[in-house]
Formats: sequence, structure tokens, C-alpha cells
Amino acid sequence: MSVENLRSLWRDGKPVRGAWQATADSFITEILAHSGFDVLVLDMQHGMAVSLECAARWLEAVGNTDVAALVRVPWNDPFQIQSVLDAGADGVIVPLIGSVADAIQAVGACRYPPLGMRSWGPNRAHLRHGLDYQTWANEQILCLALIEHVNAVKQIDEIVGVPGLDGFFIGPNDLGLSLGLAPGQFDARHAAACRRVLDVGRSHGKVVGYYGGGGPDEARLRVTEGFNFCPIVHDVGLIQEGAARAIRDFAAS
Amino acid sequence: MSVENLRSLWRDGKPVRGAWQATADSFITEILAHSGFDVLVLDMQHGMAVSLECAARWLEAVGNTDVAALVRVPWNDPFQIQSVLDAGADGVIVPLIGSVADAIQAVGACRYPPLGMRSWGPNRAHLRHGLDYQTWANEQILCLALIEHVNAVKQIDEIVGVPGLDGFFIGPNDLGLSLGLAPGQFDARHAAACRRVLDVGRSHGKVVGYYGGGGPDEARLRVTEGFNFCPIVHDVGLIQEGAARAIRDFAAS
Amino acid sequence: MSVENLRSLWRDGKPVRGAWQATADSFITEILAHSGFDVLVLDMQHGMAVSLECAARWLEAVGNTDVAALVRVPWNDPFQIQSVLDAGADGVIVPLIGSVADAIQAVGACRYPPLGMRSWGPNRAHLRHGLDYQTWANEQILCLALIEHVNAVKQIDEIVGVPGLDGFFIGPNDLGLSLGLAPGQFDARHAAACRRVLDVGRSHGKVVGYYGGGGPDEARLRVTEGFNFCPIVHDVGLIQEGAARAIRDFAAS
Amino acid sequence: MSVENLRSLWRDGKPVRGAWQATADSFITEILAHSGFDVLVLDMQHGMAVSLECAARWLEAVGNTDVAALVRVPWNDPFQIQSVLDAGADGVIVPLIGSVADAIQAVGACRYPPLGMRSWGPNRAHLRHGLDYQTWANEQILCLALIEHVNAVKQIDEIVGVPGLDGFFIGPNDLGLSLGLAPGQFDARHAAACRRVLDVGRSHGKVVGYYGGGGPDEARLRVTEGFNFCPIVHDVGLIQEGAARAIRDFAAS
Amino acid sequence: MSVENLRSLWRDGKPVRGAWQATADSFITEILAHSGFDVLVLDMQHGMAVSLECAARWLEAVGNTDVAALVRVPWNDPFQIQSVLDAGADGVIVPLIGSVADAIQAVGACRYPPLGMRSWGPNRAHLRHGLDYQTWANEQILCLALIEHVNAVKQIDEIVGVPGLDGFFIGPNDLGLSLGLAPGQFDARHAAACRRVLDVGRSHGKVVGYYGGGGPDEARLRVTEGFNFCPIVHDVGLIQEGAARAIRDFAAS
Amino acid sequence: MSVENLRSLWRDGKPVRGAWQATADSFITEILAHSGFDVLVLDMQHGMAVSLECAARWLEAVGNTDVAALVRVPWNDPFQIQSVLDAGADGVIVPLIGSVADAIQAVGACRYPPLGMRSWGPNRAHLRHGLDYQTWANEQILCLALIEHVNAVKQIDEIVGVPGLDGFFIGPNDLGLSLGLAPGQFDARHAAACRRVLDVGRSHGKVVGYYGGGGPDEARLRVTEGFNFCPIVHDVGLIQEGAARAIRDFAAS
Repeated sequence: MSVENLRSLWRDGKPVRGAWQATADSFITEILAHSGFDVLVLDMQHGMAVSLECAARWLEAVGNTDVAALVRVPWNDPFQIQSVLDAGADGVIVPLIGSVADAIQAVGACRYPPLGMRSWGPNRAHLRHGLDYQTWANEQILCLALIEHVNAVKQIDEIVGVPGLDGFFIGPNDLGLSLGLAPGQFDARHAAACRRVLDVGRSHGKVVGYYGGGGPDEARLRVTEGFNFCPIVHDVGLIQEGAARAIRDFAAS
Repeated sequence: MSVENLRSLWRDGKPVRGAWQATADSFITEILAHSGFDVLVLDMQHGMAVSLECAARWLEAVGNTDVAALVRVPWNDPFQIQSVLDAGADGVIVPLIGSVADAIQAVGACRYPPLGMRSWGPNRAHLRHGLDYQTWANEQILCLALIEHVNAVKQIDEIVGVPGLDGFFIGPNDLGLSLGLAPGQFDARHAAACRRVLDVGRSHGKVVGYYGGGGPDEARLRVTEGFNFCPIVHDVGLIQEGAARAIRDFAAS
Repeated sequence: MSVENLRSLWRDGKPVRGAWQATADSFITEILAHSGFDVLVLDMQHGMAVSLECAARWLEAVGNTDVAALVRVPWNDPFQIQSVLDAGADGVIVPLIGSVADAIQAVGACRYPPLGMRSWGPNRAHLRHGLDYQTWANEQILCLALIEHVNAVKQIDEIVGVPGLDGFFIGPNDLGLSLGLAPGQFDARHAAACRRVLDVGRSHGKVVGYYGGGGPDEARLRVTEGFNFCPIVHDVGLIQEGAARAIRDFAAS
Repeated sequence: MSVENLRSLWRDGKPVRGAWQATADSFITEILAHSGFDVLVLDMQHGMAVSLECAARWLEAVGNTDVAALVRVPWNDPFQIQSVLDAGADGVIVPLIGSVADAIQAVGACRYPPLGMRSWGPNRAHLRHGLDYQTWANEQILCLALIEHVNAVKQIDEIVGVPGLDGFFIGPNDLGLSLGLAPGQFDARHAAACRRVLDVGRSHGKVVGYYGGGGPDEARLRVTEGFNFCPIVHDVGLIQEGAARAIRDFAAS
Repeated sequence: MSVENLRSLWRDGKPVRGAWQATADSFITEILAHSGFDVLVLDMQHGMAVSLECAARWLEAVGNTDVAALVRVPWNDPFQIQSVLDAGADGVIVPLIGSVADAIQAVGACRYPPLGMRSWGPNRAHLRHGLDYQTWANEQILCLALIEHVNAVKQIDEIVGVPGLDGFFIGPNDLGLSLGLAPGQFDARHAAACRRVLDVGRSHGKVVGYYGGGGPDEARLRVTEGFNFCPIVHDVGLIQEGAARAIRDFAAS
Repeated sequence: MSVENLRSLWRDGKPVRGAWQATADSFITEILAHSGFDVLVLDMQHGMAVSLECAARWLEAVGNTDVAALVRVPWNDPFQIQSVLDAGADGVIVPLIGSVADAIQAVGACRYPPLGMRSWGPNRAHLRHGLDYQTWANEQILCLALIEHVNAVKQIDEIVGVPGLDGFFIGPNDLGLSLGLAPGQFDARHAAACRRVLDVGRSHGKVVGYYGGGGPDEARLRVTEGFNFCPIVHDVGLIQEGAARAIRDFAAS
């Protein structure tokens, strides 16, 4: 069970190797899924025109492997969550969780009654996860709250208590914007806010992730700080930075 | 007029032969549309990654025939309803109708002012339905409320009175989940809830549908019980059950 | 900067030549973008099944030129707005602005904090607009409110004051429906409502647009009345009316 | 039977109203198919990236009407011909017919044995044309040879005699290139070559078409000259010329 | 290794359970791939507009399982063969093998030098089959010759000797057409021709397949006759026949 | 003129920075096109399911910049060449040039009469290149012969003389296979063959390219050897190698 693999890494305190995707090209997805990552994340919020149809095709491509497949849905919208879970996602990262009510809505869309309000119809999930899906989906499918505003940080003690929420994921740029910082610019208040999310989450036994786009170096740093889910590559970044480096190297002759 | 054909079958108390589609492959759609059904339903709620773009292509494929084309939209979202109606759907089945307010919102999205709040722009509807569309769309276009929670059943007497609502459609699995039952597991309370929706709907002259996925046998049973809209095939079911049967038959040599 | 070109035309009081698109076929888009227009508008509200994926491809096709690219999103939905802006749109026309709260929500989705709540992630916008995008996006990206109901007109004095709103765009058919008129049928009350939106908008230095589908003759008339954004062609109209005219001309031999 | 409608117009010597399409956008196709034309032609040779997949979708869109649907395939390639005929085309225009052998190959791909070598598998053709398709396909399905080189004209007496060939279609620009003329530039030799194709074809009771892109005026002229298949609009032309005219008209205020 | 599974069934003389697909809808493909078949065949020759792009997506969908994936390419065209093999197909069925030269060309496209002329570039094949692909591809990848004309049968003794050819696959309808029979109509000459292909193939240790579309009953019969590759379902057939049966059963109440 | 930029670099003996693409994802294409390359090459021969439709979309995406856009077509097939040139490609790399006849066919497909047999219809080429396209296309559009077999090397003195051929491009893996070498394995005979192609080409003033997939280091080496067209990145390579490196770096903590 792909999601159980990921959960067991977390239980064992092992580092998780993740890749972030902003395109849904299925060949790139398969390449990444065969590269040794433990989890791939499809970014529907700020990826390049990633529709639910693209997400389904992405899930098919990941489906050739045991790699866990998470989707950052574009909005805290139950239909979007339901749709990617039906199509076989191992979990979701849900944007714009600013309050307990937001978190309850996000979790509710991930859990069948009586825990939540997810509607029955696990079409491709039955193929990826097996016919016993209903017996464990409510416990295993991951629901992570994207924390991307200082107001969410202020309510983090309440949000962490929402039953069924598996953890937090920090979006540092938007968090910075909410503190009056420019994109990519971080200060002590920002660090304190991140630290607070981390402490509250970890002390409640939750997963806490962070994605800064800084590659393996930053990912290692965040792991050292205590985060347990820090993607180490971004597909567009690999292209963009790899191309820039190659042009420099070629010119250096 | 395709929707009038369907309405006249109901007026005459004749059995309606319906097919349910969870894929939007246009060739399968055309095959079904030529198979003798009175109505096809495209399932955007739990179909396999059926986007509004897919729905439009599906409506084009059905458009080669006189078969009525209904769409189960993914959510009680006016834009989704407006989009499939503009693209030529004969009506919609709207999920998550749990209250009078929900039903008013769903009906409102199907009716032009002053009856509702549908916005003008019947692009492909003008091709499928003709330029006199505006003169009859408010009366003919079907709006069915999906009843899939016990709370909705409790308010069924109020919901049935919402002007412009054409009827109910029961989602038995989600209704069961809301009663604490597992998918596919039904009991007396479930039967009573279904009976109540049926009685209230029929006594007010409304269409009442039910889709249990049980094929022609179950569809016949429901018709006997008084339901008047019970799809008899499911495209994925035809593949899945047909394949299983063929493998058994082949092995039985 | 494509949006600055458009804004400077408005500042100079020059007529703006716009094209309206209801299909997103990229070749037609490129043809129009090379035809001499100042701005193209993609209609996701009543276009033919124009998904966010289509919109991104449309923006790529327009991107071959300096023509400004606006998108009429399907709904006042922050995710839709964010998605087309991230993909490089120069601005949006937002449906269903009936109140100050609606306008605040629409503007908020177009502006980064502290002015609004737009989330950071300008993927293709960085390619189309350059890496300094963040320094000017909040001031330049256009946000126009679609005024399509008589109730919105009643609150136009309040709506015009919402900070960051760039102007109004009148949808005459829906406005007529809200006045009890049939599509395409306009009367003195309708004219008065349009006049009021125009006067309030222009007196506050806002852009006021109108799209009646009447081609260059109507566009000229509206410009004379004081409107400053009146598309002069519609892609489907060019096909439909051009085909009808050609058939008549051919028969006239 | 859509192809029989077209053949009967030719038998009766009536003018045929045709539209030429270089895009396969299905909404534009449906708009044209509802505009009063007798025949639509999809141009896979010089259309904009029209794949066999696009052609199938185009045939579905035309399939909503009785309009005849011809495809100019990209090459004299039996698989391409077979594929569009299986998908329901009423006939093909085959490029690069320069000899009797070329014509035999083109016709052979349109006819089942013993007349030709078409392979059995009329998937969507069975839906569009009915299950009796095999009884009449060999006689009705149209096969027109594109004459676009002066060398083909020299052998026109032989080519016209190939059994099963329904007629000629002149490509004036390529014919001109083969005479050393620039695109759009025609002279007396060109006119004589066209005349010869026309005379030979008509005297053998064949259809002879011509497409110069000049709109209804040129189409009328060609009909006067004796041609019986001269499309009167081009979808891209309607957009391109309509946009240019509208911009001029708007500026003329 | 998926192809080795299939070869071992043949070596052991076990019945092979195959499914034939004329659509490339990836969900239907995954459903079939999870239904217990040993091999799926994608029909690009007479499937519904199945492009090489569709074939690649189909191979991704099959790739979620160990089921062998064969492709009937549309034509004896080396590029088509190379393209589906690069994308991970376990083998091809090649149409129109009427001579030793045809068979050499088909086999050549499947084998790297020095055995053939396949060009190097196993993009997705490396993901599906592993990085040691080059060490075994020439021996394992299947190349079956479609025998669909009486002239091919006449040369079957020569064709069978082409090195690297793995076997024959009979197309009974086209074979019948070449004998002057109508589709679906078979006689003693037809039976003798099939028998001859079977005898020659089996006596040389080759795979001999037959696909008549008659479901498990016919497949069993052919296996009894000695054929070792007889698909037992067709996706479109499951829909078409299943729908017809359900409508009959429903009416029978 | 994008192709003139590239030709002028070659005329001036400057190094050309090229990127090779095996996917046609348009966002990745735009990213690369903004990364500082002089030329992008789309690989339809061994790219991942790159259809002519994909190629057209790729050309649109490149079209947002001045970067030259070359296409390695899948086969020496005039229709494929014509199609990508009509869609705006600056030139083609044509596989399988093993003889003078092959080269004449490839060049012929790139040149309008009287130099070749290209058919008139530069649909998108008119948008990318301007309406004067016909006046310079025959001289500027690039036609490079892919040399990938030892037999081609043997005839290189004759091939180089084919009028209108712009140069050679070596495919080292296939060349090695034809010499009995495994992929990626090169020896002295291989080096001599490459040297011969280089010497013959350069001494006739032709462009000679080489693509070994070895990144900037190998590209620099080849430039030193005298080659003038050696792509320095491969999109899939950037992903695959970048991911492997990041996983190693992350583990190295």
C-alpha cells in the first residue's frame, strides 16, 4: 500500500525523499517515479494549468510504481479533493486553511461518514488500492493543511486538534506575503511563525512539511530543524536551473 | 425535442431505458446512443476525471441522435450547471441537495430570470435545441435533486415544494453511509427512506429516479416499486462484468 | 508590457480594438492576435467548454504577440482568477458582481497581500511578463467587474469605490433578463441602467466596457456614447455571419 | 444518406454549397454544419495540425447533421484514407495524383475487394451510415483526385479512366508552382491546364472541383465555367478577412 | 518481464486469455488490465482514431500491471512499429503481410542491428522493461504477421521462414473479402486457408492467433483447433452486446 | 527571422547553444525557450509520443521567442516534413538518409518547385515568418540529414553534393549499432566514421551536428573537434540526472 510506505517512513523517523511537480506530463512523471523518490506531489494550485483531468492522468503515470502520490489541490473545495482521491491519490495538501472551520471542511472531504462527508465512488482508487479500500481509507488517506497565512499560525493550536487532520504543510512565500515580506524574503517573524507550526504539529504527533524550493541543501536543513516532509526537487526547477547551469558550463570553455 | 421525448415517456407512465456513463469516451457514447436507450446520463461526480470539456464532447457525441442527455454535475455549483446546459444538456442531476436552500440554488442555475439566475449564453444549446430555445428552456430543461443523505430525506416534504424542481434521484450508497451502513449494504431504515422519497415525489407528480448499479433486474424491480427513472446499464460495469463473465466462460471449457 | 499598452490607449482616450473569443482554438487565436487588435478576450463564462487548461493554451497562443490578453472567468471564483493570472493573463473580467462584497472578492483575487489575497506562484506570468512581475502586478493587472443585473446597477456608486477595481463591463443580455426583457430586447430602462454604469464609472476615472455582439457599427456607437472598451468582433460570429453572408452571395448569382 | 444527398445535387446539376475547414475545432464545425452548406471539407493536408484523431472528432461533430463530410487526406496513403472512411467520412480528396498508378492506389484504398484493397472495420461508419454500409459503400463513397501538378494534367486522359474514381479536384496554387508561377499568380497556361482537367472530367461524367479561396464570387465564377464543386468559404478566411474588415469599419468612424 | 509471462504460457501450451481494444480510454484499459487477462491488444488499424499518442497513453495505463501489451499497428510502417516499441509495447501485430519482403520489413522494424533496422531510443521501454532492455529485446519482443489475404496464405511456407518472425495472426474478415466473401461470411475455402496458416505456423513452432470477435465460445473453439492466441473479449463488443442484452432483459419484465 | 539568427551564428563561426526535447510539454518548452538557447530541437523520432499535433503546439510555445525551432521528424516522409514546416518550423533533421536518393527526397520536401516538391500552404508559417515567407523559404529553411548508419558514411561524398542540403547531423548510437557496437559504446571505427562525416561536410561549407547526450562537457569537446551544432541539454536528461543528483546530495547529509 503506497500510502502505508510513506506513513511508515514517518513513523520510523526516516527522511522522506519527495519530488514536486508543476507540470503533469506523464513521461516526466514516470521518470520521476522511477528515480527513487518516496513521494511525488502534483501541484494543482500553482502548477501550469493542471486540471482534474491532468491529475487523473498523472495518477495513472505514478500508478506504475509504489511511490506515494499526493496532490496539492487548487482550493479547499470538497469536489476537487473527492475527485483526486477517487482517482487514486494517496492524500491531499489543502490550501487556505486559516481556521478550524477550514480544516474541518478539508478533512471532511477526505473521510467517509460518519467521520466526514466524502461521497462514495472510488473508481480508480479501487484499481490502485484494492477492493478493501473502504476498510482503511478513512485512516490512511493523508490530509495535510497548507499553512500560508499568519492568521492561520495564530490559530494553529486549535487547528491541530481537528480530528482526522494528519499534519501541516508550510507555504513560505505566501506566509511571507501575509507578513508584508516580498516573495523569497524571510525574516525573524517568518522563522518564528514556521517554528511555531512545526512545534505545535510535531508535539501532537503530526506530519509537518515545508517546501521552499531550495533543493537538497534546503531540504536537509529543514529536516535538521525537525520537519519531516520537505520535497527536494521541483520538475520545472530541474529544467530551469539545469539549463542555466549547462549554458554557463558550455560557455566556460 | 430530445427532452420532450423523455418527458412524454414519463407522462405516459412508460418505462424509461437509461444508460449511465462514467467515462466520456465519445465512441462508447455514440455506441450507447445507438443502442436503443431513451436517455444517457454522464456522471461527472464519480466518473473518471470527466471535466466540463469532456462533458461538452460527450454532448456532441450524443448529439448525433435523439436520445436525451442528462449530466450528473459534480457539485451543486451554478457554473457547472450553466456550462453543461449551454453545451446542450437536456437536464442535470444535482448532488448534495440537503435542504430547500440547496434545491433553490440548483433550480435557480437551471432557469433564466425571473424564475432563476441562469446567465444567457446558450452556445451549443442553440445548435442542438434550435433558436426558439429561450421560449421553452425554463419549462423543459430537467432539474433533478440527488438525495443522498438521511438529512435530506427528513426535509423531503419541503424540498419537493421548490418551484421548478422536476424530481428526485436517489444515491443509495451515500444514503446508506449517512445511515451508518457500508457501501452496498442496505437495511430496513434505508428502504424506508427510499420509500419516503418515492412517495413524496410521486404524490407531487415528480420524477423519482434510483440508481443502484444492479442492471436490468434491479431496474425492473425499482420500476415495479414505482420509480420512473432507473438506468439499466453502466459503461464501466458492462466492461468489468462482461470481462469477468467471459474469462469464466472461457475457462469453463 | 502588453497590459501597459492597453492602459496607455485608455489614458490617451484612444479607441481600443478588441476581439472576443468563444473558442480557444490556438490557431484562430494566433490569427486574431496578428490581425491588428489591441486586446483579445477569452470568454470562459459562455465560451464553448473553455477549461482552465484551454485558457493556458490560449494565453500561450496570444503570447506570440504584444496584444493584451484578458479572460472573462466563468465565476467570481478566486482560484479561477488566480489560475489565469498565473498563466499570464493581463487581466480578468469577473462575472456576477452584484455588491461591494463581490467586488472586494474579485479584486482580492487579483492583488497580492496586503492589497488582496492572491497566492504567490506566477509560473507562466514570469515568462510573459518578466521577473520584475511582482513589482508592478498589483498596479497593472486589470480587474473589471461584469455588471449584468439591475441590482448591481443599484449599488454601482458603492461598487465603484472598491479599491483596486479598474472598471466595469456591461453584459447587456443578462442585464435585460434581470429587467424582464427577452435576450436581445432592450428598452429605455435598460438604456438608463447602462448609462448610469457608464456615468459612474467614467466620472471615477474607471474603464467602462460594453459588449453587445453588434460588430463594428455597434462598437463605434458605444464609443461615441463614452464607453472605452467595446469588442468589435466575436470569433463564432465571424464564422456564423460570414458563412450566412457567403451562402446568400453565392445564391445571388 | 449524407453522401447520396451530395451525389444527387451533382446528378441534378445543382450548385453545391461547400465549406472548407483548416481547423478541426468541433464547435466551429457544428456551427458550419448548421449554416446551410451541402458539404464540409476537412483539410488535413494544409490544415493546422489536423491529426487522424482530430479528423475523427470532426466527423463526430459533422455527424450531428446530414451535411456530407469529405476529408482531404494529407497524402496518398491507404492507411489515412481507410482511417477517415472507417470513422464515417463520406469521401476523400487525395493529394498528389500524378499518374494512373497513383489514382489506382487512391481508389483502391476506398473500395473493398474485389474492387480495391480497403480493409474491413467500419467502426464509426456503421453508426453514421447504418449496418447496410457494406452493400453500398463501394459505389457511394467518394474518391476525388487532387490535381496539383502540370504532369498530372498531361496524363489526365489516362487518369480519368481509372475505374472507381469519382472525379478531380484542382489545387490551383500548387498547379501554378509546377508551372513556375508564384502562389496566387495565374496565367494563360494555368487557365488552359484547369480547363483541360475540367473538360476531360466533365466529358467523362466526373465531378470536377476547384478551390481557389476566393469566396462566393470566385465560386460562382467557377460554377459558370462548369465546375461543380467549389467551396465558398474557408473557416480561417472567415476569421482573417472578417477581422480585417471589422477593424477597417471600426476605424472608419 | 511481461512479455516473458506470455511466452511462457505459450511454451507450456496453456490457454492465453486476451482482450482486444478498439478504444484507448485509459480507465477502460486499466479495468481490463485488472480483470485477469494475460494480454491486451490495442487495435490501431481499425480502432476508433487511435493515434500513436493514444497508444503511448494506453501503454502507460497497461503499465500499472504485469499484463502483456501488444499493439496492432495500422500499417506495415517501421516508424509506427518503432514508436510503440519505444513506448513500451511487448510486441506488435503487423497488418498486410503478403510476402516474404513484407515480413522482413516488419521483423526488421522490431529488431536492432544486426538482426534488423530498429533505431535506438527506448524511452519509455527503459521504464517498463528495465535498463537491461537492449540485452534481450531482440529475442523477446513479439512480432506477429497479420495474415488477411489469400495471397499471403499462398506464400505462407516462405513467410514462416523469415528469421525473427514469432508467428501469425489471422484476420478472418479481410481474408474472406479476398476470397470474394462478405464480411462475417465464411466457407470451406476460408476454413482451409485458416487451417493451412495454422498448420504451417504450428509445425514451425510459431504462435498462431485468430480473432473472430465471437467471444469466449469461439475462442474456446479456436483453441481446440490448435490456435494459441484468440482474444475472448472486445471492449466495444462488451458495450454493444451488453447494452443490447440489458435492454432485452429489461423489456422482458 | 529566427532561422537567420541561427545561420548567422554559423556563418560567424560562433558556438551554438542548443536544447533537445523529447517531451512536447509546452511549459517546459517555454522555459527552455527563455533560458538563453539559440535553438531548440523537438525529437519526434525518439521523443515520447510526439505527434504532429504536439509538434504544432510546441512550435506555438517556441513562437513566443526568437529561438530557432528545428524538428527531428520521425521518418524521411514528405508529409511529416511539410506539416512541421507549414506549422512554422525553421528546419528539419531528417532520419535515415542513407543514399543520394534519400537526401533528394528529404530536400525536395523542404523546397517549393522548381527546387523541390513542397506543396503550398504555409498556414502558421505565415504568422511566425511573415507574408514574405515564399520569397526566402527555399533558401533559409534548414534541411539537415541524419547520418546514422555506416552505409551512409560510405556514400557521404555523394550525399553532400545534393543541392539544397544544409548539412549533416550524426546519430552516434545508431551509427554504432550499424558497426556492431552496443548503445553508448564507441570505438576507433566509430570515431573515424564521425570524423569523415565532419570533414566532408565542413569542407563543403555545410553545417555538421552531433548529439551524444553528454551535456556541456561533451558539447564543448565536439565543438573543439569542429562540429558546429551540438545540443548541450536534453529535457528528460535534466530531469533524470537532476533528480538522481538531488537524491544523492540529500542523502549525503
